Amino acid sequence: MKLQLYNTLTRKKEDFVPINYPFVGLYVCGPTVYGDPHLGHARAALTFDLLFRLLQSEGYKVRYVRNITDVGHLEADADHGEDKIAKKARLEQLEPMEVAQYYTNRYHYYMHKLGVKDPSIEPLASGHIPEQIELVEQIIAKGYGYESNGSVYFDVEKYADSNNYGVLSGRKLEDMQSGGRSDSFTSEKRSVADFALWKKASPEHIMRWNSPWGAGFPGWHCECSAMSKKYLGENFDIHGGGMDLIFPHHESEMAQSTACNHSSAKYWVHNNMITMDGKKMGKSLGNAINLEQFFSGEHSLLEQPYQPMVIRFFMMQAHYRSTLDFSNEALKASEKGLERLLKAWAQIGKITPPVDTNTATNAENIVGLYEKCREALLDDMNSPIAIAHLFDATKSINAAAEGKKIISQKDILELQKTFDLILGTILGITIDNNQNDKTSNALSGAMEMIIDLRLKARENKDWAASDFIRDQLVKHDIKLKDGANGTDWELD
Amino acid sequence: MKLQLYNTLTRKKEDFVPINYPFVGLYVCGPTVYGDPHLGHARAALTFDLLFRLLQSEGYKVRYVRNITDVGHLEADADHGEDKIAKKARLEQLEPMEVAQYYTNRYHYYMHKLGVKDPSIEPLASGHIPEQIELVEQIIAKGYGYESNGSVYFDVEKYADSNNYGVLSGRKLEDMQSGGRSDSFTSEKRSVADFALWKKASPEHIMRWNSPWGAGFPGWHCECSAMSKKYLGENFDIHGGGMDLIFPHHESEMAQSTACNHSSAKYWVHNNMITMDGKKMGKSLGNAINLEQFFSGEHSLLEQPYQPMVIRFFMMQAHYRSTLDFSNEALKASEKGLERLLKAWAQIGKITPPVDTNTATNAENIVGLYEKCREALLDDMNSPIAIAHLFDATKSINAAAEGKKIISQKDILELQKTFDLILGTILGITIDNNQNDKTSNALSGAMEMIIDLRLKARENKDWAASDFIRDQLVKHDIKLKDGANGTDWELD
Repeated sequence: MKLQLYNTLTRKKEDFVPINYPFVGLYVCGPTVYGDPHLGHARAALTFDLLFRLLQSEGYKVRYVRNITDVGHLEADADHGEDKIAKKARLEQLEPMEVAQYYTNRYHYYMHKLGVKDPSIEPLASGHIPEQIELVEQIIAKGYGYESNGSVYFDVEKYADSNNYGVLSGRKLEDMQSGGRSDSFTSEKRSVADFALWKKASPEHIMRWNSPWGAGFPGWHCECSAMSKKYLGENFDIHGGGMDLIFPHHESEMAQSTACNHSSAKYWVHNNMITMDGKKMGKSLGNAINLEQFFSGEHSLLEQPYQPMVIRFFMMQAHYRSTLDFSNEALKASEKGLERLLKAWAQIGKITPPVDTNTATNAENIVGLYEKCREALLDDMNSPIAIAHLFDATKSINAAAEGKKIISQKDILELQKTFDLILGTILGITIDNNQNDKTSNALSGAMEMIIDLRLKARENKDWAASDFIRDQLVKHDIKLKDGANGTDWELD
Repeated sequence: MKLQLYNTLTRKKEDFVPINYPFVGLYVCGPTVYGDPHLGHARAALTFDLLFRLLQSEGYKVRYVRNITDVGHLEADADHGEDKIAKKARLEQLEPMEVAQYYTNRYHYYMHKLGVKDPSIEPLASGHIPEQIELVEQIIAKGYGYESNGSVYFDVEKYADSNNYGVLSGRKLEDMQSGGRSDSFTSEKRSVADFALWKKASPEHIMRWNSPWGAGFPGWHCECSAMSKKYLGENFDIHGGGMDLIFPHHESEMAQSTACNHSSAKYWVHNNMITMDGKKMGKSLGNAINLEQFFSGEHSLLEQPYQPMVIRFFMMQAHYRSTLDFSNEALKASEKGLERLLKAWAQIGKITPPVDTNTATNAENIVGLYEKCREALLDDMNSPIAIAHLFDATKSINAAAEGKKIISQKDILELQKTFDLILGTILGITIDNNQNDKTSNALSGAMEMIIDLRLKARENKDWAASDFIRDQLVKHDIKLKDGANGTDWELD
């Protein structure tokens, strides 16, 4: 069974065949660091975290590069206007790199909360100026770039003579030429469709470097071409990002690579967007909730806080190519579902294996469970199907844990393997590691004793004492559960 | 009262007067990222974390730059030999930036564990190649640099004609010229004392950039000159680092700046080194214990694990300019001391204020406590004296908490302020935030009930039950403490 990925370039699901087995080069567009991380950042990071983990679990040696855009990304993704980070720096009276560093740290902090693994290399756009200048020089040398008033532009029309500009996004050059983006800086450009490779810095622009064309800064699309080439080579396996990056960013990256006679990525993978209560999220709409607000619950649209693992699980419950709608209702359902899975996961180790193998039934929803989940994930990362299989298995786990069913040792092992590898290693769900072990052990010990005391009270028919214990515990969110195998407890 | 800092450059304690009040520029040499963070990294990071926090608490607006050395640092801190990171990459068959990224992440992880605040900007040497090339060009233009066989060297003798090379370290040029470091690459140099500004890359060297002198990479000392100038200006306030960096690194940085007609830092601050059981730490000596090993206790020389906050507190208990000897004995004493302070800190809020102010005594060790601690810290960061004052105050706290002494409301507020600001904000000691609140609350609730049950048992003269409770709790490391105000409990 092979991994299949939907390739935006070919518009179909394809077998994944790495260029240089067992190595895989994966490049993903990371954040432009001028604001707090929000759900959009989380979805892209989680989508490719899943892919990274899946590839690793399939035995590939992955070099995962995810960049930080700290220069060159102008407002409205355009070719003119203010640099997003420089603008924030101006407003906050800080050096631009202070702004970039601050939001880079915030990004890391929240991605770690979500259990996102660090990429192998996380290069900065501002840290690769020579490489970008070299790229621009190469494009000019190939005849696809021209200098104009201290800036350099990519000649889209000339490129389109012998190449397909629009091959990735499906856009037509004619449409871009006619209407498209109106641009007051078009006087510098030969065509309105041309995009900036290097921008001349205005006198007040502080992020600037010397170049053959004077002081300036790289165009937004250059960094990914230059850095993917530097760390993954001219042709690499997978380029990922959010769907909103297909045009103009990825289309332009492809054109830059092709202009330099190489093909860049073989597979282009894009995650879909997020909505909130059915609406597009946006600052102007007042529904752009950032991750901190989700975790703390402090936003008027949120009815409660949502733990990072709930957000992660919720995203994994949707296929990455579907839009995903956030609502309190859906999140609360996810929270309950995750709790159910986590509880089942913890129960597996407590299931008593059968003494006599004849008494054990081979449960239908356990046989081949791991392979079923793996198959779903290999099918273009169909995490919701994998999770559905896990939910199905919880029924057997719960029945076995309650002693209502005896399952075979083989099934127990299959369950353990599947939950550990699929839910844990690949879907990246972790049980809260922040738990203070000492406190937790002390609580277990204290509860053991309390259950003992209560048992004695009941044996002595001291119902008052027995009730006192139960009531006091309930007050402190501890619930006692009497069962066939004695009394158990859990936190509410 | 003013901050005083010992300035390595003038060899005396000086009043700290920032160049551009209230702004302070602080540059500190960060790690060369080719190995796991050890105590040396921790001491430098903690020393300047203390300074960063102290300056902020005094109202300064600090821009703190701490670099990451990911290129150009050659073995044995020399001018030839292999790049430390490239060598690690070769041994581990990785791209050098993968190695740098991995150990940068590890560094961040452990520094966060130690409660080290992120600097304002954390620039990479490899991300500032154009700036370093510009610096070398400037030095050549000023007549203090010369090209030789594709490399560029700093002409120390010529510089020494009109400047003092050795002004920071106190070394004499004659000594460096005669013996000093013997160097097989001296044929390229005019004098053995000269140091590399740019190194030609050998064909197999993968970390390389184009330059006016051909493909190569910057000399180790260039990055700090280039990056401090870029982010803090030509003249800035404080340059920090470990004492082992004074020569050749900081001496050479100073020479580079002076050659370009500016003075770089006004105050040079250096933390002293660490020994283990009285011996220098080193890989060859088998006593180079890294932070992970301290935290886990997994090293033959360690008798137990030590929590990050214990390591932090231990370092704060020594003055940064003293050598600091690590031993199990000293660490265990620190652990106990920290526990005592934390317990006292937590008790402050529980002290009953006096009903009648006449009954309250103004405790000598509380009046003016905050100012005494602050004074100690402003005196060249004398953290051990500040901590001694805190220990002194714990006596009053404990006596008041036990009801043996009534202290005034003013004293209670002074205690709270001092512990919060001195121990918390400036010394950076935090109570373990990882504690799972739910579990912890449940344990408190359960213990409250148990203490109740035990009281009832004792009232009923049911000594068996009362003893059973105490014994069971001891088994699970929970200790009951009977006192005047009833029974309290704590984890052992």
